[in-house]
Amino acid sequence: MIRAAEQRLQPVVRKTPMLNSPFLDEIAGRQVLVKAECLQHTGSFKFRGGYSALSGLPDIKGVIAYSSGNHAQGVALAAQMHGVEAVIIMPGDAPVSKIENTKALGAKVVLYNRATEDRDALGAELADQSNLTLVKPFDEPLVIAGQGTTGLEIATQAAEFSVAEAQVLVPCGGGGLASGISLALAAEAPAMLVRPVEPAEFDDAARSLALGERVSNTRLSGSICDAIITQSPGEITFPIMQKHCGSGLVVSEDECLKTMALAFSYLKIIIEPGGAVALAAALFHSDEIEGDTVICVATGGNVDADMFARALAKHP
Amino acid sequence: MIRAAEQRLQPVVRKTPMLNSPFLDEIAGRQVLVKAECLQHTGSFKFRGGYSALSGLPDIKGVIAYSSGNHAQGVALAAQMHGVEAVIIMPGDAPVSKIENTKALGAKVVLYNRATEDRDALGAELADQSNLTLVKPFDEPLVIAGQGTTGLEIATQAAEFSVAEAQVLVPCGGGGLASGISLALAAEAPAMLVRPVEPAEFDDAARSLALGERVSNTRLSGSICDAIITQSPGEITFPIMQKHCGSGLVVSEDECLKTMALAFSYLKIIIEPGGAVALAAALFHSDEIEGDTVICVATGGNVDADMFARALAKHP
Repeated sequence: MIRAAEQRLQPVVRKTPMLNSPFLDEIAGRQVLVKAECLQHTGSFKFRGGYSALSGLPDIKGVIAYSSGNHAQGVALAAQMHGVEAVIIMPGDAPVSKIENTKALGAKVVLYNRATEDRDALGAELADQSNLTLVKPFDEPLVIAGQGTTGLEIATQAAEFSVAEAQVLVPCGGGGLASGISLALAAEAPAMLVRPVEPAEFDDAARSLALGERVSNTRLSGSICDAIITQSPGEITFPIMQKHCGSGLVVSEDECLKTMALAFSYLKIIIEPGGAVALAAALFHSDEIEGDTVICVATGGNVDADMFARALAKHP
Repeated sequence: MIRAAEQRLQPVVRKTPMLNSPFLDEIAGRQVLVKAECLQHTGSFKFRGGYSALSGLPDIKGVIAYSSGNHAQGVALAAQMHGVEAVIIMPGDAPVSKIENTKALGAKVVLYNRATEDRDALGAELADQSNLTLVKPFDEPLVIAGQGTTGLEIATQAAEFSVAEAQVLVPCGGGGLASGISLALAAEAPAMLVRPVEPAEFDDAARSLALGERVSNTRLSGSICDAIITQSPGEITFPIMQKHCGSGLVVSEDECLKTMALAFSYLKIIIEPGGAVALAAALFHSDEIEGDTVICVATGGNVDADMFARALAKHP
């Protein structure tokens, strides 16, 4: 399914660069390669899954999706490219730029309260009413396959650096990207090991992997890492992660902000807080990582200017 | 010479992406493609020219260069990769990060006063004393050839967007990049026209092209576009620009800062003020440009955090 998604995505997806810097290598104590998916269309890898779903599902009249903003924009652009309607359910506390850009891509946006309303139920209800097809953010095979195309590119690009063996750190919300990449690498680069990375206090995937069963976060708001805050790993994604991923890593919000500032200085890319957790783990938790090379996915760059200015103020 | 430089650079250079955004297209009123050389090694295209010179000159024991910071870092990294010494003469008012990064790449940095000292004379004197080879920032055929490799990539990447005809806006200091790209495109994409872009009050290239002779700027400091402030177009670069380039474009500092903020939002890349002039012209001077597509080179991203925060404050 990942290879089929790659075929459908080939004419439209941006093959994002694998970046590096001697300055980051020095901080991390090993070679650091950064897969810059913040440079993907709509500013995050989510375009891959959205386009994979739109192009892979038969007879779509329109789509509905719930999202903190990145899946929203990915689905909105994919729907626009397919000439169909998109309705997106977004939390009211999502970054303003994510809400505005989703609207500008032609989608109808419905806001909900992240703390008190269940977006899954809301999505199902609206889909029933409106005859739109629900595109789930992670627990959907076509979406996982789309995100998995990132893994195919990582395998190819790492080989260009003569790297066959590495831990691959992946920011983790519901686990669509981590599970997709882990499946791709199991086939294409079996000496690579995906490790999901989350912010402290929202480490449902790390705890679930450690316990061997899906557990939930106690709260679902109040993190600057809005892009990767989910209740728990997915029903479909978790068994894949159990089979193919290593243990989870956890970073602090302060480490995310410092990482955003270091990526500004040494990679010249914008990373949002949730997209920075993997590189943050590589830079500030190197004793929890093994190997000469670590690969980090920078998943998105959709951050408001005031939050980015806050990160720059943390500049070392 | 450009094709030979491409061969030497091939194993080490980063093939930077050609980025775009529907939001920028809308502002510009035409398709905008951005060649993101800020993602090049050392954060600017200057690595191309530096590496081209180091790999193309015979029997180098060490190099000396004068630079406001981007050529400095490009030459410093190229020297480090060739295992030879680098001495870099930099203006005391260059961004702190450029000076520090040049030192961190192993170069010896000598500071001079941009307003009162002649860097050409200082460079020649130090080269004589120390038996180092002077690598000029633009008036050196091997450097022009290295920068010209950007043009070969632009021709290939534009073709992937089915674009054969376009004005190609290039930030212009001494004209090494503009002349190099114009030579490459004359061979590879003859329906493309390079137009140099400069900041207001430092528009020596635009005035020189209009007058048909090299004229100088009245001052050499006091611009936020430090990377592209030079006295006049080069002796070697100017005749090439006269033959192959269209008329120059001029933008304001305020337009540069706004452009940096828009690139933050819609491309997720860091552009420094001098590297933003081409995209600024595309966005804010569209009536001075012709054609359905405009290609802009974002030449560098080496900007201090406080200057970038100043740009973010201009966010529309």
